[in-house]
Amino acid sequence: MRRRELESADVALFSELVDTCEVGFLSLVTGQGYPRAIALNFAAVGETIYFHGALEGEKFELIQAAPQAGFTIVKPYSFIPSTWSAPRYACPATHFFKSIEIKGVCSRVHDPGEMARGLTALMDKHQPEGGFDPIDPAVPVYAKALDGVGVFRVVTESWTGKVKFGQNEPEKLRRVFVRKLRERGGPMDEETAREIEKTLP
Amino acid sequence: MRRRELESADVALFSELVDTCEVGFLSLVTGQGYPRAIALNFAAVGETIYFHGALEGEKFELIQAAPQAGFTIVKPYSFIPSTWSAPRYACPATHFFKSIEIKGVCSRVHDPGEMARGLTALMDKHQPEGGFDPIDPAVPVYAKALDGVGVFRVVTESWTGKVKFGQNEPEKLRRVFVRKLRERGGPMDEETAREIEKTLP
Repeated sequence: MRRRELESADVALFSELVDTCEVGFLSLVTGQGYPRAIALNFAAVGETIYFHGALEGEKFELIQAAPQAGFTIVKPYSFIPSTWSAPRYACPATHFFKSIEIKGVCSRVHDPGEMARGLTALMDKHQPEGGFDPIDPAVPVYAKALDGVGVFRVVTESWTGKVKFGQNEPEKLRRVFVRKLRERGGPMDEETAREIEKTLP
Repeated sequence: MRRRELESADVALFSELVDTCEVGFLSLVTGQGYPRAIALNFAAVGETIYFHGALEGEKFELIQAAPQAGFTIVKPYSFIPSTWSAPRYACPATHFFKSIEIKGVCSRVHDPGEMARGLTALMDKHQPEGGFDPIDPAVPVYAKALDGVGVFRVVTESWTGKVKFGQNEPEKLRRVFVRKLRERGGPMDEETAREIEKTLP
């Protein structure tokens, strides 16, 4: 990463993004050498990403053919208009965010126990209120369903995190951003202000 | 696409997503054949995607080396819990969304006029309230800035759209979803209910 001051290897960042972001982007390379990024619901168990999908179609074929994969997760925070930094000059406009980019190996999960764990992680994340029987290959209705659904994983080989909240800006300007964000009061503005405050002395 | 009933080639879908989604995912292939998906702020002019970035670093080098690119944009709508479809069975849980996936060629923009148009589109999208001087290479302060910033484009060769609002579910169940979404009243639920209603006879 070019901007070292924005880089993060904090495992808390990894946990926060995999647990709170609903959608992640699986990147794969096609047989023709074209890259694709595919949006997915996912859940992590440790550093392994699980998702489900069909056992046919292009995504399935790509995974079989080209297991090298990326998985990118982003949490966008507030947009910072140029006018908060400069009166007439557009260039300082920016967008604060947190992201992680995983490099790993993508493959189909065959073991029914691991399939059930991956699907359980997905349900626990997206439907924490429950309301369904535990996913267990020993339960006949699930045994049949597990035969028909594809469960896939990306095993993380390495990952890089990026956290951008104006760390490369003067402290005085960051305090202006905090004040302006609270005045504006948009949906992510209070959360963004708190993240900027963490960068202040 | 495997599920033809979810596919869309509607240009209004393309326009809606490029104009309303703040973040898109550029996919590239590294020299080692690894895919990467990189989150970016972007703007479209017609079917061409513009973004800016540094003129050094891995992203810049990848674009120079491997112009074949993907660009994926997703608008997530509501999560539909399994309990709305089945009393005890987890499998019907799903997430509704709209997405487009572009296949194209990524390159650096060199022409100062096109650079200015791309950056103007970015500013008009993210800072519609204005408050900055028009970006024009003839204005000395911008001429200097345009020398130092990288402006890049993805020229669309083809794209596919996907719209998932339960079109493959019985009409009766879709009406249940509409009612449950309005009862729940989460942030995207009314918008999702309206999209499902568009699929109803």
